[in-house]
Amino acid sequence: SRVSAAGAEPGSRPTAVAAVLPAGGCGERMGVRTPKQFCRVLERPLISYTLQALERVCWIKDIVVAVTGENMEAMRNIIQRYGHKRISLAEAGATRHRSIFSGLKALAEDQPDCKLTKPEVVIIHDAVRPFVEEDVLLRVVMAAKEHGAAGAIRPLVSTVISPAADGCLDHALDRAKHRASEMPQAFLFDVIYEAYQQCSDYDLEFGTECLQLALKYCHTKAKLVEGPPELWKVTYKQDLYAAESLIKEKISQEICVVVKTKDEESVGHLLKEVLKNELNCATITSTALDHSGGDIQNFLTDQCCSFIWVTVLSSDFQETRKFLTALEESSLPLLYPVVVVLVHCLDFTLVPPAQKMESLMWIRGLAKEVKKRNVLLSGLLINYSQDEQKLQESLQQGASIIAALVKERSPALAGQLLVA
Amino acid sequence: SRVSAAGAEPGSRPTAVAAVLPAGGCGERMGVRTPKQFCRVLERPLISYTLQALERVCWIKDIVVAVTGENMEAMRNIIQRYGHKRISLAEAGATRHRSIFSGLKALAEDQPDCKLTKPEVVIIHDAVRPFVEEDVLLRVVMAAKEHGAAGAIRPLVSTVISPAADGCLDHALDRAKHRASEMPQAFLFDVIYEAYQQCSDYDLEFGTECLQLALKYCHTKAKLVEGPPELWKVTYKQDLYAAESLIKEKISQEICVVVKTKDEESVGHLLKEVLKNELNCATITSTALDHSGGDIQNFLTDQCCSFIWVTVLSSDFQETRKFLTALEESSLPLLYPVVVVLVHCLDFTLVPPAQKMESLMWIRGLAKEVKKRNVLLSGLLINYSQDEQKLQESLQQGASIIAALVKERSPALAGQLLVA
Ligand SMILES: [Mg+2]
Ligand SMILES: [Mg+2]
Repeated sequence: SRVSAAGAEPGSRPTAVAAVLPAGGCGERMGVRTPKQFCRVLERPLISYTLQALERVCWIKDIVVAVTGENMEAMRNIIQRYGHKRISLAEAGATRHRSIFSGLKALAEDQPDCKLTKPEVVIIHDAVRPFVEEDVLLRVVMAAKEHGAAGAIRPLVSTVISPAADGCLDHALDRAKHRASEMPQAFLFDVIYEAYQQCSDYDLEFGTECLQLALKYCHTKAKLVEGPPELWKVTYKQDLYAAESLIKEKISQEICVVVKTKDEESVGHLLKEVLKNELNCATITSTALDHSGGDIQNFLTDQCCSFIWVTVLSSDFQETRKFLTALEESSLPLLYPVVVVLVHCLDFTLVPPAQKMESLMWIRGLAKEVKKRNVLLSGLLINYSQDEQKLQESLQQGASIIAALVKERSPALAGQLLVA
Repeated sequence: SRVSAAGAEPGSRPTAVAAVLPAGGCGERMGVRTPKQFCRVLERPLISYTLQALERVCWIKDIVVAVTGENMEAMRNIIQRYGHKRISLAEAGATRHRSIFSGLKALAEDQPDCKLTKPEVVIIHDAVRPFVEEDVLLRVVMAAKEHGAAGAIRPLVSTVISPAADGCLDHALDRAKHRASEMPQAFLFDVIYEAYQQCSDYDLEFGTECLQLALKYCHTKAKLVEGPPELWKVTYKQDLYAAESLIKEKISQEICVVVKTKDEESVGHLLKEVLKNELNCATITSTALDHSGGDIQNFLTDQCCSFIWVTVLSSDFQETRKFLTALEESSLPLLYPVVVVLVHCLDFTLVPPAQKMESLMWIRGLAKEVKKRNVLLSGLLINYSQDEQKLQESLQQGASIIAALVKERSPALAGQLLVA
């Protein structure tokens, strides 16, 4: 088993790995009627973020999602709309364990109409833990290869207590001697499938912990792997808020600056540099478009669904509309709402901002139109001053405004003409 | 004890209650250097929200906060800046238990220089649980009167496991038989003070659970009280985000609409009605100001620190400045950043918005000036159209814009002239 442990070295990739996501839960705890995995964060169902996180990991070959019959169609729509790949659907059972078992069956070779290949290792993850990273997935998979089973754990935040029958404290547990069992978990497929086949109806109804099933029915002691706090389970309303903020933080760092003509490249470049600092950008794609939008596809190859468009062009209505249409009609996996900021550069001493705004009032109408399709269009005037300091100030303020639009993604502020 | 249990009936208020907040923690878990109780949410330290939540409960007579020597001065500044009342400071110890003990000593009558009265019941709460409501405080206090000790609990979100020495799973606990112990807790003062006086150095160093001390040293079995999910402990970065969203949601529901002159009262009233729906407002104060701002004090008596100002006035620069100065110089416990929206009503067919914007460009300069003092000023034009439908549309859009400004409180968007 030293050999497989060595597989965890940097650069190595495990083979024959699949994932099962039980997504049959009904979200009672959220205090809303929508099951929490289907709650929308920035208009997009939470589960879609989780699928995206798993898809980014190229060595996960298949992802089986177990959903209830009534959500099957909605799930198919999500897969299509957000361009998810490598997903198979299985029918969820009445409990979490039954849903996982259903997902495992879809992966088992002994099933008749099975199109999937039985994996060596299977990851079990929750649909409501969208912030899982490749690193922790790799660590649990490698530990499962070595130990047969492995699961992410976290320190306890609260002390755990045991109540007596009268609703009073019986005893408190020693916090240092216990951990919270989180997801992802991973298993040798044969181990966990055997455990599910062996286990009792009582286990399938009332059990919660897969690691415990592997222990009870296969005598496999799971390796516990410390995970990061971002693995937490989105359970309550405040967790949805937290998820939204984390997603906003992430996507606001991926910006595409489109510069229309060569002569404006310099201010576009300056703006890009200021934006990089302002948004702590990981990805900032820059391109010069000579005609309006036709080649959007060509320069956007990032698989990730987060695009923010900052165009530096003194475009007219028709041109801008063509550009937006090209964007919407592209097969890019856009993350809606898409924010588009049309940046116009002019010397405020030569053209007063209010005058320019008058000539840009068409943005209001166009914004109203595209807002229906979840594209948030705004205009921004930057003072392209001869005075170096004034230019820098305006660029800095412009970048702050763009950052706010991009982070908040507030539909109410679409259609406005802003001045930096 | 039936008598004190009867005290939990609606309308009854417990007497002789104090609260102790250990706030000596160092925030390692947050991944930041600032102790988490001092982390800023909307520019204001988290602990200030918690103190506010406790102060709102009129039957809590004294609140003792235990802070480390190095944070004592910062804590005094927070108390002054946000106008906190009924607060006493005690010196925190090296552990949570030592800090609580220090707070209890300050309340005990046997201490020499004690200005506080020994309470019958003492609440122990965390500085990093700002969303505690009167209801749960009342329930734990009443349960403590009856049972000697009581604490809020929540169902477990994750399964709790016990690791073996080799880092593998030893066993998983039955989730249904365990609960997470949260805060607030409450005790008969004599019970918990006795427990702390009796307990060992080991307990003071490594113990976490006050309920367990009461059990161990006073044989008092704490009553467990189911609390709401909002009681959760702000621990990680995502918890700060969640806290921020919940606070924004709350404060955006408390708006003050100031209407300047009688003839504008009608549109002011209409806007107020639309805002009520848009923001799900709990508090919306409306007033007519005849001169600029001098009587702000008079109509704002709400003790709560959340004010948002929507003024419906076609004011000039001097008038607006006077108004802002009166606001800032008032002794109102403002929640910074304060959002001020100057709403101007005009018929867009008679005066084009761009023309009006030109005459309002002074808002940019004034906004820049007051932004330094954390006041976020924006202008908003509403189409005071003769056409009833156009007027309604504009009011609706205006309300959405105000809601966005008020919820996001984004400094980057201050100084803008927006059009509804
Ligand atoms: Mg579990
Ligand atoms: Mg505790």
